[in-house]
Amino acid sequence: MSIDPAHAARPLDAEDELAPFRERFVIDDPALIYLDGNSLGRLPRAAQQRARELVDEEWGRGLIGSWNDRWLRLPERLGAKIARLLGAEADEALLADSTSVNLFKLVVAALRARPDRPRVVTDDLNFPSDLYILQSALQLAGPERRLEVVRSPDGMTLPLETLAAAISPDTALVVLSHTTFRSAFVHDMAAVTDLAHRYGALVLWDVSHSVGALPLSLRETGADLAVGCTYKYLNGGPGAPAFLYVRRDLQPALQNPIAGWFGREDPFRFALDYQPEAGIRRFLTGTPPILSLALVEPGVDLLLEAGLDRVRAKSVRQTEYLIALWEELLAPLGFTLNSPRDPARRGSHVSLGHPEGLRINRALVERLRVVPDFRAPDNIRLGVCPLYTTYAEVLQAVHALRAVVADRLYAEYPREHSGVT
Amino acid sequence: MSIDPAHAARPLDAEDELAPFRERFVIDDPALIYLDGNSLGRLPRAAQQRARELVDEEWGRGLIGSWNDRWLRLPERLGAKIARLLGAEADEALLADSTSVNLFKLVVAALRARPDRPRVVTDDLNFPSDLYILQSALQLAGPERRLEVVRSPDGMTLPLETLAAAISPDTALVVLSHTTFRSAFVHDMAAVTDLAHRYGALVLWDVSHSVGALPLSLRETGADLAVGCTYKYLNGGPGAPAFLYVRRDLQPALQNPIAGWFGREDPFRFALDYQPEAGIRRFLTGTPPILSLALVEPGVDLLLEAGLDRVRAKSVRQTEYLIALWEELLAPLGFTLNSPRDPARRGSHVSLGHPEGLRINRALVERLRVVPDFRAPDNIRLGVCPLYTTYAEVLQAVHALRAVVADRLYAEYPREHSGVT
Repeated sequence: MSIDPAHAARPLDAEDELAPFRERFVIDDPALIYLDGNSLGRLPRAAQQRARELVDEEWGRGLIGSWNDRWLRLPERLGAKIARLLGAEADEALLADSTSVNLFKLVVAALRARPDRPRVVTDDLNFPSDLYILQSALQLAGPERRLEVVRSPDGMTLPLETLAAAISPDTALVVLSHTTFRSAFVHDMAAVTDLAHRYGALVLWDVSHSVGALPLSLRETGADLAVGCTYKYLNGGPGAPAFLYVRRDLQPALQNPIAGWFGREDPFRFALDYQPEAGIRRFLTGTPPILSLALVEPGVDLLLEAGLDRVRAKSVRQTEYLIALWEELLAPLGFTLNSPRDPARRGSHVSLGHPEGLRINRALVERLRVVPDFRAPDNIRLGVCPLYTTYAEVLQAVHALRAVVADRLYAEYPREHSGVT
Repeated sequence: MSIDPAHAARPLDAEDELAPFRERFVIDDPALIYLDGNSLGRLPRAAQQRARELVDEEWGRGLIGSWNDRWLRLPERLGAKIARLLGAEADEALLADSTSVNLFKLVVAALRARPDRPRVVTDDLNFPSDLYILQSALQLAGPERRLEVVRSPDGMTLPLETLAAAISPDTALVVLSHTTFRSAFVHDMAAVTDLAHRYGALVLWDVSHSVGALPLSLRETGADLAVGCTYKYLNGGPGAPAFLYVRRDLQPALQNPIAGWFGREDPFRFALDYQPEAGIRRFLTGTPPILSLALVEPGVDLLLEAGLDRVRAKSVRQTEYLIALWEELLAPLGFTLNSPRDPARRGSHVSLGHPEGLRINRALVERLRVVPDFRAPDNIRLGVCPLYTTYAEVLQAVHALRAVVADRLYAEYPREHSGVT
C-alpha cells in the first residue's frame, strides 16, 4: 500500500461506502479522535432512544407486565441476532452474564463432558481474565486437571505448530481468544478446531475482539463453544452482558454448572428440583440485567444492516492504512509494530510499541484528545471501528503520535500506571 | 385492629408521613393499583434522570474515560450504600452479578472454608433458584456433600425447633431466605445465626425479600454471608445486579470460585496469574453491566432518606390493615391467609390463598387493573411498598378481589399458567 500520508485520508473517506453509518452514532464532540471502540464502542443513536423507551415505558409504565411482553425472551431473541454475527444458528447463542461467568459455565460443562482427559490448553496471548477463570474452573474440576499455557514465541503471535505440539489425546479442551487483546493476532479458527478435534478435544473460542469486526464461522469450522462480549465492536454499552455459543448437537449433553431458575424448564412453577430447559436457554442462570441487556440490540442491528463483509473490508483497509502511516512517520521515531503484518491474521486494532508507551498514551489523551488505550508492557492500541472511524481520524492520530514523541509532550507524565486507559 | 373497611383508607393516608415519597416515583397511570413492588419495584423519578445522564453523558460523551471517572468503583461504592440497609459496614457489601451467581460464589467459598463438614441445610420455603444453585454448588463440591431441605410443617412457616433438629456438628452451612417468597414468613435471623454458630456452621441469608422492606442487622446478629436482589423493594430496575455481603473478618479466608479480572488486585497490569484484591472486591468476577448497576442508586437513596424504621412501621401497618380487611371481606369468600399473623414474623407482602387463585389473579390484572402476582399453588401475593403504596390502594385491591370472586369474573380464564405474573 503506497500512500502519501499528508493527503491520503480525504479520498479514502470520500469513497467509503460505510461512511453514512457514522451519523447513526452520537458524536457530539468531533474534535475527539476516538480509537478505543475495541474497549468501549460508541453510543448508537438508536440505543439512546431505546434507553428512554426501556426506562420510561417498559419499566415505568409496563412494570411487571413487561416481563411477559418484552423481557423474558430477550436472552435468546438477542442471542439469535448475535448468532448471525457468529456464523451460527439462531438457537445456538444466548445473551446473559459477563464473559467471565459465561466462560466459567462452559469450561466446567466441557470438563464434565471429557471426564478422563486431564489437560486444558490455552496460550499466554489469551485475555488474563480468561486465564483466571480457567484456573478457577480447574480448581473445582479436581486435582488431576492441569492447565497448559502455551507461550507465544514473540509475545504477539502463536504459530499453529507451537499450539499443535501442546495438544494430545489427554487434552479435554482448547480455550483461546480468537483475536488476541494485545496484538490483535487472529488464530486460524478452522485449523485450530480441526487440530483439537483430531485428538477428540473440544474447542472454546473467546471472540470478544472478533465479533462485529470480522465475519465468524463458528458452525462452518465446527467450533464447539464460544463466549464473547458486546461492549466493544457491537457497541452494546459499558459492561453490557456477554453471549455464549453452544453448538446445537452439544447442548443436550452439556450441563450448566450454575443452574439457576432462568435456565429451568418452566421456572414459574417454582418446583424444588432443577430440570434444565431443552435448548440453549439451559445456560442461563439468574435474572438478567434487562436495561443493559436490551441496549445491546441497536448496535447489533447496525452491524447486520452494514454487513460484516463490508465492515471487515474497511477494517482491513484502515489498519493497512495505519500501518503504512506507521512505517513512514512513526517507525523512525522508535515505534514498533506489535501487530501482525498479514491482515488475514490481524483483527481491527493495531498495537504500536514504544518504550515510553504509557506516557505517550496519556499525553495523547490529555493533550491532543486522541484516545487509544494502553496495554502493558508497551502497547498503544489503536482500534478502528468501521461503522464510525474515518480515515481522517487515523491520519490525525498518527500525526498526534508523531507530535507527542517529536516534541516530548509525554515527558511531564509519571511512569506509573493506574486505571483503565 | 378494628377498621370499618369502607371508610378507613383516607385518614390513614392523611396521617402517613411517608406519603410525600410517592411523588418521587413515576406514576403516570393512577388507575393502576400496583401491589407487585415485591417483584419489580417502581421507577424512581431520579432513576429516569440518571438513565439519561448515564447513556447520553457518561457513555455517549465520556466514553472510555467514564470507566476511570465514574464506573470502576461503582460495585463497592453502591455496595457501601446498600450495606447501610443491611446493618453492615461499608466495606462488607458489593453490587454485581445476579443473586443466583452471587449465591453460587459464596456457597462454594463457604464449603471450601468448611472442608470436613458434609451437610448444607436449607428449607423448602427458600426461593427455588437458591435451591437449584445449592444443588449446583454441591455437585461441584464433591460426592460426600449433601443438601438437607427441611420441610415446613404448614408450607408457610418454619419453627426454630424444626430447623434446630437439622443442624449438627457436620453442618457446613445454613442457607435460608430471610423473608420467604411465598408466605413472607421471616426467619429469626439472630436465633438461627446463633444456632448455626453453636455448631460451628456458617450462615448465608438471602435477603431479597427483606432488604428495603425492614431493617436488617447482619453485623449485629453475627451473620456470615448474605446475598440479595435490588429490583424489588430497592426499586433498582428489571434484573438489576444483586449484592453480596461477606463479614469483614471472613473476607481474607474466603476465595472467590469464579475469579475474574474485576476481583484481581491491579487488574490493568494484565498479569497471567490471579491474585485476589484484599477486601470485598475479590468477590467480583467480570465486567459489571454498568447501566443496570448504576440505576440501583436512586432507589437506595430514597430508602436511606426515608429511613428503614419508618418504612417498616408503615409496612406493618399496611399489612395489618390488609389482613383486617381480608378477615372482614375476603375470608367469607373462601380466601385463606397464607402469611403469618404475627407482624414480627411477616415481611412486606401478604399472600392470600384461594383454590381459584391463578384465575382470580389474572382477572384482577386484566379486568380490574389491580396487579398482585401469583405463586403456585394458590398464592395471590399482595405486596406493599411503603414509599409509594397508599392505604387507598390496599382497600381498592381488597374490593377488587371481592368483586372478582363475588361476580365470578375469573370464570372466563383458563386454569393453566404461563409467564411471570
